[in-house]
Amino acid sequence: MSYSPLIDQLITALRCLPGVGAKSAQRMAFQLLERDRQGGRLLAEALQQAMADVGHCAQCRNLTEQPLCGICASHSRDPQLLCVVESPADVVAIEQSGSFRGRYFVLQGHLSPLDGLGPDDIGIPQLLERLQESEVEELIIATNPTVEGEATAHYIVEQVRPMGLNVTRIAHGVPLGGELEYVDGSTLTHAFNGRKAL
Amino acid sequence: MSYSPLIDQLITALRCLPGVGAKSAQRMAFQLLERDRQGGRLLAEALQQAMADVGHCAQCRNLTEQPLCGICASHSRDPQLLCVVESPADVVAIEQSGSFRGRYFVLQGHLSPLDGLGPDDIGIPQLLERLQESEVEELIIATNPTVEGEATAHYIVEQVRPMGLNVTRIAHGVPLGGELEYVDGSTLTHAFNGRKAL
Repeated sequence: MSYSPLIDQLITALRCLPGVGAKSAQRMAFQLLERDRQGGRLLAEALQQAMADVGHCAQCRNLTEQPLCGICASHSRDPQLLCVVESPADVVAIEQSGSFRGRYFVLQGHLSPLDGLGPDDIGIPQLLERLQESEVEELIIATNPTVEGEATAHYIVEQVRPMGLNVTRIAHGVPLGGELEYVDGSTLTHAFNGRKAL
Repeated sequence: MSYSPLIDQLITALRCLPGVGAKSAQRMAFQLLERDRQGGRLLAEALQQAMADVGHCAQCRNLTEQPLCGICASHSRDPQLLCVVESPADVVAIEQSGSFRGRYFVLQGHLSPLDGLGPDDIGIPQLLERLQESEVEELIIATNPTVEGEATAHYIVEQVRPMGLNVTRIAHGVPLGGELEYVDGSTLTHAFNGRKAL
């Protein structure tokens, strides 16, 4: 037993972070204790506040400590465009690309019958309600291009069809900066099927 | 701005951890908020307690929240052997190897005139005092085999020489499981100079 109880407890607690194993947790604990106690105290406080106060936006289900998230509350977003994504990290990625000026709906997951995740768990009723009440004209489905993400996209399309909205899916194909040689076969198939006239 | 203020604060605070950049910090924050709030709360508490209460062992300068660390307080350690290391992580590594049954002295650094670290900063006076008062018969120097670690080892040897103790240095050579082909030249030189009769 080479750690004192409090250090042991800190190392164990750090391992709840994704990608942090025994060795990194030890390194983090010693780094904070030896060289950055102030950073450790600020982190403790930030964690405590975020875990206690961050909830979900009443309109889009994104993470926020306010009743409405910054994007839903903003008047400069186009109310006719709604983009459906799986997670808050997807919102961050799209916002960083600067390519979308509408609002979002965050499923917080995807349909996954094996894990017991059905339409209610990913907020489909709330999405349908929002589409009926609001002035959305185009629903852009940006779930992940995985088996579950595609299944979720199809399910949403089926549910939304009677409403007569424009429903679109973001394009799949060869990523920019990639080399054809290293792109997988399914992506190439998508890229060929989705080809455009120049 | 895609994060709410509390999430932004949490992501910034997580970046004080070594090896955690913007992307991992975001991933950690979302993982805790979406899937492991309890883990986040426990981490906040563990951090807060450790930062507030962990200090240094009065005898060996290792990190502990008690006046004496577990190793200094234990009666089953050999009081005639003292091993000098640079950091608490070194103590952990040696303890895990199970190869040493004496006690430690943790310098918490190495001599580094460029960074303004002199003998007083790494506890040399405290080490000399301990050697004079106690029944230590062999001082094993296990500072790192780096330029600063070697300089620190030499300095300690000079200071301790008048006391007539056995002073030893851990062996340097080819690590077990390594392949000669990939071992650097200085290590091979050490391995040849330190060769033993079979």
